[in-house]
Amino acid sequence: MNRKLRMGMIGGGKDAFIGAIHRLAANMDGLIELKAGALSINPEIAQDSGRSLFLEEDRIYTDFKTMLEKEAAQPADKRLDFITIVTPNFAHFEPAMMALDKGFHVVVEKPITFTLDEAKQLKAKVEQTGLTLLLTHTYTGYPMVKQARAMVKNGALGKIRKVWVEYPQGWLSKLSEREGNAQAAWRTDPKRSGKSGCFGDIGTHAANLAEYISGQKIDKLCADLNIMVEGRMLDDDGAVLLRFDGGAAGVLMASQVAAGEENALKIRVYGEKGGLEWAQHEPNTLLVKWLDKPTEIYRAGAGNPHLDSFATHNCRTPGGHPEGYLEAFANLYRNFALTLQAKIDGVPPTMGALDFPSVDDGIRGMAFIDMVVKSSASQEKWTKFEI
Amino acid sequence: MNRKLRMGMIGGGKDAFIGAIHRLAANMDGLIELKAGALSINPEIAQDSGRSLFLEEDRIYTDFKTMLEKEAAQPADKRLDFITIVTPNFAHFEPAMMALDKGFHVVVEKPITFTLDEAKQLKAKVEQTGLTLLLTHTYTGYPMVKQARAMVKNGALGKIRKVWVEYPQGWLSKLSEREGNAQAAWRTDPKRSGKSGCFGDIGTHAANLAEYISGQKIDKLCADLNIMVEGRMLDDDGAVLLRFDGGAAGVLMASQVAAGEENALKIRVYGEKGGLEWAQHEPNTLLVKWLDKPTEIYRAGAGNPHLDSFATHNCRTPGGHPEGYLEAFANLYRNFALTLQAKIDGVPPTMGALDFPSVDDGIRGMAFIDMVVKSSASQEKWTKFEI
Amino acid sequence: MNRKLRMGMIGGGKDAFIGAIHRLAANMDGLIELKAGALSINPEIAQDSGRSLFLEEDRIYTDFKTMLEKEAAQPADKRLDFITIVTPNFAHFEPAMMALDKGFHVVVEKPITFTLDEAKQLKAKVEQTGLTLLLTHTYTGYPMVKQARAMVKNGALGKIRKVWVEYPQGWLSKLSEREGNAQAAWRTDPKRSGKSGCFGDIGTHAANLAEYISGQKIDKLCADLNIMVEGRMLDDDGAVLLRFDGGAAGVLMASQVAAGEENALKIRVYGEKGGLEWAQHEPNTLLVKWLDKPTEIYRAGAGNPHLDSFATHNCRTPGGHPEGYLEAFANLYRNFALTLQAKIDGVPPTMGALDFPSVDDGIRGMAFIDMVVKSSASQEKWTKFEI
Amino acid sequence: MNRKLRMGMIGGGKDAFIGAIHRLAANMDGLIELKAGALSINPEIAQDSGRSLFLEEDRIYTDFKTMLEKEAAQPADKRLDFITIVTPNFAHFEPAMMALDKGFHVVVEKPITFTLDEAKQLKAKVEQTGLTLLLTHTYTGYPMVKQARAMVKNGALGKIRKVWVEYPQGWLSKLSEREGNAQAAWRTDPKRSGKSGCFGDIGTHAANLAEYISGQKIDKLCADLNIMVEGRMLDDDGAVLLRFDGGAAGVLMASQVAAGEENALKIRVYGEKGGLEWAQHEPNTLLVKWLDKPTEIYRAGAGNPHLDSFATHNCRTPGGHPEGYLEAFANLYRNFALTLQAKIDGVPPTMGALDFPSVDDGIRGMAFIDMVVKSSASQEKWTKFEI
Repeated sequence: MNRKLRMGMIGGGKDAFIGAIHRLAANMDGLIELKAGALSINPEIAQDSGRSLFLEEDRIYTDFKTMLEKEAAQPADKRLDFITIVTPNFAHFEPAMMALDKGFHVVVEKPITFTLDEAKQLKAKVEQTGLTLLLTHTYTGYPMVKQARAMVKNGALGKIRKVWVEYPQGWLSKLSEREGNAQAAWRTDPKRSGKSGCFGDIGTHAANLAEYISGQKIDKLCADLNIMVEGRMLDDDGAVLLRFDGGAAGVLMASQVAAGEENALKIRVYGEKGGLEWAQHEPNTLLVKWLDKPTEIYRAGAGNPHLDSFATHNCRTPGGHPEGYLEAFANLYRNFALTLQAKIDGVPPTMGALDFPSVDDGIRGMAFIDMVVKSSASQEKWTKFEI
Repeated sequence: MNRKLRMGMIGGGKDAFIGAIHRLAANMDGLIELKAGALSINPEIAQDSGRSLFLEEDRIYTDFKTMLEKEAAQPADKRLDFITIVTPNFAHFEPAMMALDKGFHVVVEKPITFTLDEAKQLKAKVEQTGLTLLLTHTYTGYPMVKQARAMVKNGALGKIRKVWVEYPQGWLSKLSEREGNAQAAWRTDPKRSGKSGCFGDIGTHAANLAEYISGQKIDKLCADLNIMVEGRMLDDDGAVLLRFDGGAAGVLMASQVAAGEENALKIRVYGEKGGLEWAQHEPNTLLVKWLDKPTEIYRAGAGNPHLDSFATHNCRTPGGHPEGYLEAFANLYRNFALTLQAKIDGVPPTMGALDFPSVDDGIRGMAFIDMVVKSSASQEKWTKFEI
Repeated sequence: MNRKLRMGMIGGGKDAFIGAIHRLAANMDGLIELKAGALSINPEIAQDSGRSLFLEEDRIYTDFKTMLEKEAAQPADKRLDFITIVTPNFAHFEPAMMALDKGFHVVVEKPITFTLDEAKQLKAKVEQTGLTLLLTHTYTGYPMVKQARAMVKNGALGKIRKVWVEYPQGWLSKLSEREGNAQAAWRTDPKRSGKSGCFGDIGTHAANLAEYISGQKIDKLCADLNIMVEGRMLDDDGAVLLRFDGGAAGVLMASQVAAGEENALKIRVYGEKGGLEWAQHEPNTLLVKWLDKPTEIYRAGAGNPHLDSFATHNCRTPGGHPEGYLEAFANLYRNFALTLQAKIDGVPPTMGALDFPSVDDGIRGMAFIDMVVKSSASQEKWTKFEI
Repeated sequence: MNRKLRMGMIGGGKDAFIGAIHRLAANMDGLIELKAGALSINPEIAQDSGRSLFLEEDRIYTDFKTMLEKEAAQPADKRLDFITIVTPNFAHFEPAMMALDKGFHVVVEKPITFTLDEAKQLKAKVEQTGLTLLLTHTYTGYPMVKQARAMVKNGALGKIRKVWVEYPQGWLSKLSEREGNAQAAWRTDPKRSGKSGCFGDIGTHAANLAEYISGQKIDKLCADLNIMVEGRMLDDDGAVLLRFDGGAAGVLMASQVAAGEENALKIRVYGEKGGLEWAQHEPNTLLVKWLDKPTEIYRAGAGNPHLDSFATHNCRTPGGHPEGYLEAFANLYRNFALTLQAKIDGVPPTMGALDFPSVDDGIRGMAFIDMVVKSSASQEKWTKFEI
């Protein structure tokens, strides 16, 4: 392929958090360029944001429908390859469906849609169009998460028995949604966020990570969701007992009222022969624990001979040059871009390129939200995980 | 008081683990001397063990009844002050009752008895005799655990919302009880250990620590106990959702099949204003997290001006001279000894001296075991914590 | 400014390490686009590399002179703004001088030149042309390094007494330069690397960081450089005692034979009231130690209220989303780009934008190399730091 | 042996720091009992201290000469086995010599004497009497220090190239000796402490540890000692470049004005194949770094199969039950006691028992003090280490 891929963006104006992250991630490897945007429904913000990103004037839009209509009509040498959707949860489905209909590949911020039903429709659309969808479950983009998955998969730990995953944050310890915090406002609002707050926002990340690394799927669960801050409308805390289809037992803990915690996603997986521990705060380290010999510190790094090829493929720097959240995010975009390049070039993508979260992860995420909400309201101990 | 306290020991022969720990802990501060022992029911081991501990020949016994009979008849200047019981769980109750009947104070290794009912009888006996009982829940003897408790108590964190406590070990990852491991053999045997394995052994420590620091009592729980190693007779793993009487929600995780873990007890407590994190592997550090300012690293150390008096009272060395498990254990003995000294001298003990686990902790521990076993067998989500 | 800045690159073909890092860093924030390159003197590599970076065919060059000649003649709407030079040390000076002569701003990988004399000539050229030069001393681009510098500057620690800086790597523990390692080959070759190996490569980083944070300049030093691997031509290890002009004493340790170390740059600074500790392996944390209160853990993060404005300016993500080496590198490029934008727009750059290493840092770095080599060969204890 | 060893103590009254530590260490293993003391030259403190330690009235003394005279005349079944000397540095020599003359084994707190010459006389006395002397260089008592030494010795790391040892404390950051701090007063007073402050107090520990682990002896050095706090009479800070007799190069850094540091002794040793890192703050961990495979975390613990026998011999608890400073100190006493027991029983002591610092360590320590003071005053770079 002899050109960068062309990206359009829906949402992500100047005042938004995650849109900027997507752009940093898409920029990093020089494979993608932003060419059009409906960055805000506020015309002034849309305009300002587009200009500061050096968009051409006529490719700055204020509504996504106009953008998709007009951009679909661009000539081949200007045509967008894919659309990134970074609006609040309730506004993912419609633009995603329309983008696919117009022939664009799609990147969606998680959770994939507002409801499980929408997610299913989206999956049908992806299958029908043959287009590619990337769901940005960032944390599976880290090289040492890839390494962990590979070590489970190749049996280094033996049969997996335990999965403990936790995701404490503290930023909703107060009723910030009433104090002018825009992020807090939409994320705690059932009309914009969905039927779960904390578990929709971060619990799904934890569940996705647990299944990704363990190679097992959640089979049944027992949830206890809480609203810890008086006056809040959605859960801000909770814990879930898990049973996996491969026989593992687990616990998933998530909280946004763990005062003083930043974004402390952490997972531990134990098998018959050893265990793994990975924490997002120090993402380049994977602790590998053994029954009969000392714990080993695996470290990320291009050229590190003891790493699996999937881990190596997702490193840019040699060991000791820490890569972080943006690189993990960029790995999603890079693998997505390599897959699109291969499609465009008519060649099969490499395995590594194909390793990114997709619409199936989105459906499991939406089902997870449904199941924890259902279980939390139930007096029965176990709720079967059904899609 | 112008002499050391005199200790007799039941159990704890050469081949045992915890007896040696008790002796190290009792020796450390020079307040106690071992004077008699029924250290083993195996006469040879009893004899050897007693001699290697420099006991006088006529105070080495092979059964506890003879020892208690004969020692009760010693003259005042030789009479034992207290009896330490370090036999397996099923053999705590009888010697403890008899020791109290003979007028000796008692130290018992946890869990206090084999059944909750025995624990209640023991409590009645303690109250009736007016004697003092120390239950060696070691982990509350650490200075930074005292500090954590004090900070919760004085309101530094605001109302407590969350308690996460975990206790992973890996030493039962194989069926070691069939491979000649004596420790494993009795701890996984319902006849010697009780109705729970992992939760009787270490789950109770975690529950005790959670209640001690949070100042709240477990009110209801939802348990999922597992036998992960085929052929085992008692749980070796599990997790419990918790609700506390003060409004906190919590999770307790314990496992003896977390391959590669040593003894990784850890607790996190979050309130409205901040959180605490303490891990037994690095016991001299307490992380104090705040909503609005940087996390602080509190460190143990005599003379450390920012520590609570209960923490300081339980430090022997200045900051940076790490104290560990044996010192925590010795704190229990020291506080117990100071309490006995005060009793003997007819003066009121200091608050710090009184701060050690006692028969009430034992009863809650036994009830905890009952409740988790009951809950784990139930299809109902919540089981009320009742004694 | 309504367009991205245009970059040309000299060196950095497919097989090189640092060129790719520069491109990642330049891409990240969407302010810069690569438009021309003399990426290798090997025509095939130059061609391949240029194409894989989507350069237009006629802007792919095989020698820097041709590139600078032709690019200087481009019309305004295509003209390069600056040239990045990522060749080995001996090939920095000539292209840098020529680029400045042609009116391009310049980015140079460190060390700035091959000799101190060249560095001085380059400084004269920068001053004469009024153009801007960025020297990529990466480590001062980290937000928590900015924070450390700010805390020293504002007197939080009192007068600085101690600076300990260390930079252990292990990758030259064997005679890799004879085993086909191209990086090792040129870096240990006096003809390509200069008069020092380890101290030219990483010792200069440590010295730069020490002066940047402490705000004091090295005044005299006592060096002990070593060649630890037999057959090597340049130092691969050493240590230096330091005295600073502000009264601090210090130690600088650097090694490339610290087997098992990756890239473990670390600095500690102590003043009358407290100390700072920062390690590149966990760059988002700054330990702030105090004489009379607990150590604090400062953490990077946009919007973190207790950070200095220079630190905040160099964060892209909220706390708990780790930024790493590439972001630190990108901070250099971003601040350089913001400075060029301001120049082009005819407005004054912000203070934060101006905060990047420049030709003066380059001169001090070259002098540092001269001084440690001189001192190491001397029997005198102290060598005065002179430029 | 069928009794505890009997200890007498000189110095270590109620108000002293290190005397209490010695007693805790001597008590722990139940091998030693304190039977007599000249604990203070202040009669009231001596009396109070002796009583609180349950000494018999007639074995409480106020001067060491009387004590040694009278105790030498005790009958065999009461006679002291050894004398522990915990007075300030200037008052070590005389009681040590006299104790040996009276036939007592001796324990001396470090530094062994006030001058190198005294140390040599003491050595002659030890050799002449055939008695045993323990010098309490605590830090070599840690099991993971034993492990480190063993791994160097058995060649696991290849030839040792680098030794970095550091010992930062912050407690003398102010002129505390003028503010009523008794510890600070004598330690900074040349008449009581000797010719060096910081390097006599903690620099010697670092040097001892470096030689113990590396198995190499310091051959020449280049020191830079400082007085950082105005008005102080002895060095409170410094750094030393080292060359060892086995070819290693090293750095030793020690400071008592590293504000905010507790007692952060740390050592790193690198050989051709790997490196070791041990820090006293987390003493149960030894990081073992390798050129070609992941870093391993060795952990202390009785029964830990991958530990050397010298490490195991010095562990009391299983892995995960942290042992600390007092246990390290107790290891010195225990090995000394086992050696005395063997002597008394007329059997050869085990190798492990013999592994404690002795008069030769004391002589090297005193020579180290002399050499760093001499080097620091010299304009020559290198000073030969001579005894």
